[in-house]
Amino acid sequence: MTDSVKYLLDETRIPKHWYNLMADLPSPPPPVLHPGTLQPVGPDDLAPLFPMALIMQEVSTDREIEIPDPVRDVYRQWRPSPLYRARRLEKTLQTPARIYYKYEGVSPAGSHKPNTAVAQAFYNKEAGVQRISTETGAGQWGSSLAFAGALFGLEVQVFMVKVSYNQKPYRRALMETYGARCIASPSMETNFGRALLAKSPDNNGSLGIAISEAVEVAASREDTKYALGSVLNHVLLHQTVVGQEAMAQMEMANDFPDIIVGCTGGGSNFAGIAFPFLGAQLRGGQNVRIIAVEPAACPSLTRGRYAYDFGDTGHMTPLAKMHTLGSAFMPPGFHAGGLRYHGMAPLVSHIKELGLIEARAYHQVSCFEAGVLFARNEGIVPAPEANHAVKGAIDEALRCKESGTSKAILFNLCGHGHFDMQAYTDYFAGKLTDQQYDEKELAMALAGLPSVPETA
Amino acid sequence: MTDSVKYLLDETRIPKHWYNLMADLPSPPPPVLHPGTLQPVGPDDLAPLFPMALIMQEVSTDREIEIPDPVRDVYRQWRPSPLYRARRLEKTLQTPARIYYKYEGVSPAGSHKPNTAVAQAFYNKEAGVQRISTETGAGQWGSSLAFAGALFGLEVQVFMVKVSYNQKPYRRALMETYGARCIASPSMETNFGRALLAKSPDNNGSLGIAISEAVEVAASREDTKYALGSVLNHVLLHQTVVGQEAMAQMEMANDFPDIIVGCTGGGSNFAGIAFPFLGAQLRGGQNVRIIAVEPAACPSLTRGRYAYDFGDTGHMTPLAKMHTLGSAFMPPGFHAGGLRYHGMAPLVSHIKELGLIEARAYHQVSCFEAGVLFARNEGIVPAPEANHAVKGAIDEALRCKESGTSKAILFNLCGHGHFDMQAYTDYFAGKLTDQQYDEKELAMALAGLPSVPETA
Repeated sequence: MTDSVKYLLDETRIPKHWYNLMADLPSPPPPVLHPGTLQPVGPDDLAPLFPMALIMQEVSTDREIEIPDPVRDVYRQWRPSPLYRARRLEKTLQTPARIYYKYEGVSPAGSHKPNTAVAQAFYNKEAGVQRISTETGAGQWGSSLAFAGALFGLEVQVFMVKVSYNQKPYRRALMETYGARCIASPSMETNFGRALLAKSPDNNGSLGIAISEAVEVAASREDTKYALGSVLNHVLLHQTVVGQEAMAQMEMANDFPDIIVGCTGGGSNFAGIAFPFLGAQLRGGQNVRIIAVEPAACPSLTRGRYAYDFGDTGHMTPLAKMHTLGSAFMPPGFHAGGLRYHGMAPLVSHIKELGLIEARAYHQVSCFEAGVLFARNEGIVPAPEANHAVKGAIDEALRCKESGTSKAILFNLCGHGHFDMQAYTDYFAGKLTDQQYDEKELAMALAGLPSVPETA
Repeated sequence: MTDSVKYLLDETRIPKHWYNLMADLPSPPPPVLHPGTLQPVGPDDLAPLFPMALIMQEVSTDREIEIPDPVRDVYRQWRPSPLYRARRLEKTLQTPARIYYKYEGVSPAGSHKPNTAVAQAFYNKEAGVQRISTETGAGQWGSSLAFAGALFGLEVQVFMVKVSYNQKPYRRALMETYGARCIASPSMETNFGRALLAKSPDNNGSLGIAISEAVEVAASREDTKYALGSVLNHVLLHQTVVGQEAMAQMEMANDFPDIIVGCTGGGSNFAGIAFPFLGAQLRGGQNVRIIAVEPAACPSLTRGRYAYDFGDTGHMTPLAKMHTLGSAFMPPGFHAGGLRYHGMAPLVSHIKELGLIEARAYHQVSCFEAGVLFARNEGIVPAPEANHAVKGAIDEALRCKESGTSKAILFNLCGHGHFDMQAYTDYFAGKLTDQQYDEKELAMALAGLPSVPETA
């Protein structure tokens, strides 16, 4: 018997299609609306922003969507990613639970984000696009799209939230190493950015502002399209390679997860691991408890309202029905930058409403505590975002210990923390605190939600 | 046909033994000498510093040394590491050469160093050691031993060169995440450190000084042994898993390297990829050109003297015959911290003297240029050390283009650069310059070599 076990598929086992949960849902999610007409948006409304192939994926109800060969070829560099049994951690916790984790940090950018970045770059290239504009918070998404752009010969322009741009020069350096141009947002390159800076030159930016700038650039230039790293249906779709591989790997382990845990910001890594299992369940397969873990400082699923809202601060996007804290909500500063978003993927929100998943929120100090315990046992230092999933999995394992039940827990370790060591430094120095948002500000942001009649 | 190809072995193919080049050498390397008596050191002389199992490996002439199961179990987390064909890079270079690289950045610490760290931690644990002291420059080795110590329940104490301690807080944070104690060297914890600080409180440290401090701690405490991350025979031995796997993977590719390239600081990653191929050649197998690439700012193999020298600044180590710039040599600051060492592994020096390998030196700017080209084509951002190997491989590929010959080039991509993005930032900002040492200082350092009679 060995201490740690890795389940590795050979590259012929890279999924040949993405799995589309839409095909198996008991009811479809509410439509995305045009903010002016409050009518459902059609493909043409989105054409200025996305290539048609991605728009068709956004609205598709086909169960399987074929992964193009050039995308699979790039996937082969790091896919199938390993699935591990955390035997050393189990031993340390003295739990009868069987803990498994899927590790997405093996990608060149160090997270799950390239799964969709490569696909999006491919479809844009196919459509003759020259340039992609996008936004990034902590930099995981921006560096992943920069990587994908380099491989497909696309220019990539990344609006990076100014506070991160200044505080995280290494993620920026990574984007530049891949050849992308990185711009501090708000910037002087867009009308929205200029207007904000005219009002307050010291504006430190937010993800919502950076989205507005990236969308504006794409909407106003023929040669440029926009790319988003989470939230949208097609982004979640591309991440389902994670869960499909995990299903095959759990089979190799002769096991099946009783519980699946993922962290949620926009929802894409969570969807990636959970949707293929959920789909199988909806088609009559084995039941699995699915738990979304979010930061208590930005708790859209546990404290947000399920309502129509904009995806950005500048209100340039369509309206999507989702769990939202309001597009004016400014989450306090905490280290899991990838989870600092006011909304939640409409598909994840929908299945939460359908009661198909659970959600819980943790503060960051306990998540780092879990992450350090994990690193000392399993050797991998998780990203701050992933620490939320680690914490969720450990809590479930400790519950198994209390009740004396041996459950299989699977979580998505969506990225490594090599670019986030300042957060660990702060944690060890005792400088990390649990940030809390202001309840009044949340109430105000929710009060500012757009008014959409129930019948829309 | 696909753009990139990965050759992956399943975990049953993790080597079952380390390969010992000593068994196949036409002549043995000169013995290591006691600095007082100038007589060859015996196992007992080394016993205060190392567990006996490692000492026996240091002097062994057995061709194969079995890898203990608990070490292989830990290896399984990331081994066998992938071997890639760099098809996109080949295309960009328009070379008829076939470029392959073995990627060691998949380990939890991000480099090849855990291959020996895990083995050393295991043997120390077996011998009842409680604590390991070591030194680290840029932090690759320190974080690898910290990782290994965490898994085997050993305390790890790392003397980190002070300038790196202050400039590279993230490698330090990684060591602390694994539970190690990291101390800026020179420190007040050793006689040697205190003496240096009394003379010059602002001393920024060097690898040679940090080695002296770590050795002093180990030599003066019953419960503590010392560990070195390169140079020694047993360290190079542990790295041969790299080359053994690469041999099997080149076979999967139906190819065989005409040229092997590795970067050299102390020599361990180079030995890891090269020794198994060299051994096969010495036993009558196929010929392969082997090229060691070192930094022009610290060129022990190309500009050093082949002479007996100390491994450290404080002259606490035995004397080894090696290519050395003199233990008093202070290399200028450049970004490949892992290559900033005055000496070279005695085994690597010996085969250089035997004419079995070539050596060349590059300045850093051209190495970063090669690294960025590599990243934009292959997606992986190399560590500054590894950029030297990338540059060497690209130069050989361009030579193939000039001559119109299609050779197979294999290099060791010994680690990723995620902790070294400041270097890339400097490169893009045009702040990176080619550092050169002072010829007079080198002459003085060489003049200060210990005097050892030829007959010793």
